[in-house]
Amino acid sequence: MFDFQRTHTCGSLNRSNLNQQVTLSGWVHRRRDHGGLIFIDLRDRFGLTQLLFDPKVDAKTHEEAAKLRSEWVISIKGKVIPRAEGMTNTKLATGEIEIEVNGLHILSQAKTPPFSIAEEELDVNEELRLKFRYLDIRRGIISKNLELRHRAMLHTRNFMSSQGFLEISTPILAKSTPEGARDYLVPSRIHPGNFYALPQSPQIFKQLLMVSGMDRYFQIASCFRDEDLRADRQPEFTQIDIEMSFGTPDVLMQILENLMATLFKETIGVSVKTDFCKMPYKDALEFYGTDRPDLRYDMQLIRLDDIAQRSQFTVLLDQLQAGGIVKGICVKQGSDISRKEIDEYTQFVSKFGLQGLAWMKLQTDGLSSSIVKFFSEDLLKELTQKMDMQIGDLIFIAAGPEDKVNQGLDHLRRKLARDRDLMSADKYCFLWVVDFPLFRYNPEDKRMESEHHPFTSPNFDDISLLDKEPLKARALAYDLVLNGYEIGGGSQRIHNGTLQEKIFSLLQLTEKEIKEKFGFFVDALKYGTPPHLGFAFGLDRIIMLLAKTENIRDVIAFPKTQKASDLMMQCPSPVSKQQLHELEISAEPTEIAWI
Amino acid sequence: MFDFQRTHTCGSLNRSNLNQQVTLSGWVHRRRDHGGLIFIDLRDRFGLTQLLFDPKVDAKTHEEAAKLRSEWVISIKGKVIPRAEGMTNTKLATGEIEIEVNGLHILSQAKTPPFSIAEEELDVNEELRLKFRYLDIRRGIISKNLELRHRAMLHTRNFMSSQGFLEISTPILAKSTPEGARDYLVPSRIHPGNFYALPQSPQIFKQLLMVSGMDRYFQIASCFRDEDLRADRQPEFTQIDIEMSFGTPDVLMQILENLMATLFKETIGVSVKTDFCKMPYKDALEFYGTDRPDLRYDMQLIRLDDIAQRSQFTVLLDQLQAGGIVKGICVKQGSDISRKEIDEYTQFVSKFGLQGLAWMKLQTDGLSSSIVKFFSEDLLKELTQKMDMQIGDLIFIAAGPEDKVNQGLDHLRRKLARDRDLMSADKYCFLWVVDFPLFRYNPEDKRMESEHHPFTSPNFDDISLLDKEPLKARALAYDLVLNGYEIGGGSQRIHNGTLQEKIFSLLQLTEKEIKEKFGFFVDALKYGTPPHLGFAFGLDRIIMLLAKTENIRDVIAFPKTQKASDLMMQCPSPVSKQQLHELEISAEPTEIAWI
Repeated sequence: MFDFQRTHTCGSLNRSNLNQQVTLSGWVHRRRDHGGLIFIDLRDRFGLTQLLFDPKVDAKTHEEAAKLRSEWVISIKGKVIPRAEGMTNTKLATGEIEIEVNGLHILSQAKTPPFSIAEEELDVNEELRLKFRYLDIRRGIISKNLELRHRAMLHTRNFMSSQGFLEISTPILAKSTPEGARDYLVPSRIHPGNFYALPQSPQIFKQLLMVSGMDRYFQIASCFRDEDLRADRQPEFTQIDIEMSFGTPDVLMQILENLMATLFKETIGVSVKTDFCKMPYKDALEFYGTDRPDLRYDMQLIRLDDIAQRSQFTVLLDQLQAGGIVKGICVKQGSDISRKEIDEYTQFVSKFGLQGLAWMKLQTDGLSSSIVKFFSEDLLKELTQKMDMQIGDLIFIAAGPEDKVNQGLDHLRRKLARDRDLMSADKYCFLWVVDFPLFRYNPEDKRMESEHHPFTSPNFDDISLLDKEPLKARALAYDLVLNGYEIGGGSQRIHNGTLQEKIFSLLQLTEKEIKEKFGFFVDALKYGTPPHLGFAFGLDRIIMLLAKTENIRDVIAFPKTQKASDLMMQCPSPVSKQQLHELEISAEPTEIAWI
Repeated sequence: MFDFQRTHTCGSLNRSNLNQQVTLSGWVHRRRDHGGLIFIDLRDRFGLTQLLFDPKVDAKTHEEAAKLRSEWVISIKGKVIPRAEGMTNTKLATGEIEIEVNGLHILSQAKTPPFSIAEEELDVNEELRLKFRYLDIRRGIISKNLELRHRAMLHTRNFMSSQGFLEISTPILAKSTPEGARDYLVPSRIHPGNFYALPQSPQIFKQLLMVSGMDRYFQIASCFRDEDLRADRQPEFTQIDIEMSFGTPDVLMQILENLMATLFKETIGVSVKTDFCKMPYKDALEFYGTDRPDLRYDMQLIRLDDIAQRSQFTVLLDQLQAGGIVKGICVKQGSDISRKEIDEYTQFVSKFGLQGLAWMKLQTDGLSSSIVKFFSEDLLKELTQKMDMQIGDLIFIAAGPEDKVNQGLDHLRRKLARDRDLMSADKYCFLWVVDFPLFRYNPEDKRMESEHHPFTSPNFDDISLLDKEPLKARALAYDLVLNGYEIGGGSQRIHNGTLQEKIFSLLQLTEKEIKEKFGFFVDALKYGTPPHLGFAFGLDRIIMLLAKTENIRDVIAFPKTQKASDLMMQCPSPVSKQQLHELEISAEPTEIAWI
């Protein structure tokens, strides 16, 4: 019986193996017939090896080889020989050798695939790729991402374990809670009409594990949200979930920085300097218009209220009058940006609610722009100085409500960086955004809400503010931002019962509401809760950044579409009447058109 | 601001730390007031440390300490000093020292717990333990099991990775399939009336990953079955799921044996000899009455049809006449078993459908038993020889249909081993059970069914049997048994399209049935499938064996009851009308009485 045992993978043979007898197995990648010889590239996950079928070496095997078609699975025996002069391929690890085949076994045949496996670079419709995901993975890019993901997860686990964190699995069949996003529900058969919910995160479980004294917990956890999906979201996603007792943010941040630094080194060989920058939430909004600034490039947002106030430019003045703000952004050497491009940028920011963009260029012959006339000579000087304009630079100025100006200029800044190639793909700028506000005011309900959740600790220095100016109190909450993406967030939790009650009362929650919203959890916290704090990374996003892809589906083995469907399995799907009957629920299936 | 930073855990200080100033944090485990001094055992996951509050050292702190109650969380500063002569505790790692406290900070107070945390050995009602799981974990046993589980999972991952296996996450929101056990369903909101199903195992995904060329896969995977639960089952359970390409059972078994050997060494320090025994399924049933024999002790089942046939014992003769069998089991030095005990064993086996147990004792004065008279002198000699009876031994004889005799004697054998203390808790007997039959005959449908599933490969040597005597064909399926528990199973899969079609035709499946039952998967296998095979371990059961517990809930952080409920979260639970409305399903909640 043929035993399928290969001696090597298709990526491992080179000149050092010359003259060895080897056995390889894999897929027929490409076939060329050439002067009576048959050449086959044999492929597996590890690489390609060229096979040579020569009728003079083995006539029967050569004859067999003539039958082979793309994607058939074969196993061969043969001798490692050097490739003929001029036929070596330096791009391939195995490019200096080939196998003179003297035995062939066809393991399985293959139907013609719906898209080429060998032409990896070929752009294939993503729906077709998802339908035939098992073939898409075979093409190579996804398979490499999955290997990267494996290495990243394994490193994370070993690192966290080395820091005294235990991985503890928490339930998938959990309880629906009124807080947060929409739950996926699971009907119970034993208790008809009752439901489990898939967890949006293990938040409650990990805090309970701290109450239970487990000290340091982590988990690479599946999480679920039944939301309408944006491009980079999936209904099920993965978190590196972390919680620790008897620590403060500084201690945790150091652990997390070391996790990131070792992870980037181990998986993609990039050295990351720890001691990441910290930026207060307020500064992030002021200077970048967002709480997840991309620091690979500069172009800060600069506040121009004061200068605008002294101009004659009514557009700006009107916005200031209405309570708005004015900010500018300086594009270094941006004077090559044409009027047409400026119009396009104006169009672009209008999507975020900005009504226009004023602009100025500083060239050797002075400032040019349609709005120069609204500013005095001195004011223009002050403006160029404030904006740090040099000859060749261009500035954009936006005015409007603060959130709109921030949002518009944040997106403009990102777009400019992309268009002007300022986003170095090999640069990794980590940033802690800290000092988030503890509360926000909800004008409709006329009461404060927690910015994060009601268990988030106030900054210890701001506890005295809770009575007088609670909206000024900062939370001990922190996000980690990488290259403009929020890759994780966390907070110190309240462990002191008196403080917790104070927060509940500031939120004007009654005992009944507390019980309804948080159930047994509030009670659990009363049995001796250690100081604890935690964090959760979005694993999928980190893998995207490591793999340099912007498509989340490229880092998940079997992803779902933006309609939360699996095109390969064709699910969700109708179920039998018997199944619904057992669950005592009724439902009418709508038809789904599958590709 | 007090920063919660401990210098040591409560399990780490000893004589080598004498005179050091330390900071510890933890829970008040026990308090004793003694001659004006206050002693507190401070506890965390790592151990206990004795604190000494001496009014002469620090009057204010001593006064504060008087307020402390069980389970309050505190942080202290103090000096490591030796315990007074005669007060050392050799059972405790920290038993030679205590801390002379000179600073105390109360981090949080605690309500009186519903059961004692300090009296770990105290037997508490399991429902109460589950309701207050966070306190149950704090008691120590569960916390140690969770740490063991963490180490076992981490070792498994590192080991499998070192063998070239990649951990690949597969979907939790999957598709309901008509095969197998009952699915948990998840209603889709975007496609109303359609459902996802939680996976019973990642079987289809892992085979697809082989089709996709991923070569070697593993995953510590959450699996779900909506079945009525036996004591050792949970609705969600965990598998170490494995699949590899281009291998045969021998190769895979070697990897799995090394996984087990290194796992037992790493986690509990036990050396396991690899090259586990292999036993054909037929022999396991013949000699142990089960496909999961416990080999820590002997007591084989011995076939006595031939001897019984020649006796005058009508009970046996009637059973043989009716197509049944006769088997015996020899209890070494079992002649001390009393008539009363024999009656109890007879009662015990009746639960498994055996109508009685005959017995004989061999003592210095010869054989004694009520049934001796039915056997000739020669036949008795033959019987005692066949049963290998020595003076002092007892044999039991059972007759009946083969499955009943096997089941009854298997259970009898296990019970005898337990009663007679033959199950050494420190002995680990691994066993491969191999050569399972490929098919079984279903007399109702008058056709064959797959014993495992239709993708299981026949033994390569038995392919010629498929046409003539398919029921005699052995499958390339194998279980791993440890101390009488099946801890995992797997099989070689069919990779050859022609063979797969032959199996389908033997099962009398039509094209339509194939499509309905297996959907796209059968099609996927036609695009170039490598030879592949796999295995799945029941992780929970392995942890139970490592932790020496027989309660599966003791190795899971937040387990469910046998009614699939979580007593702590009180779920499943009713959900809002709005939630049901969005899913377009209707359901009437039944009320659940929570403890």
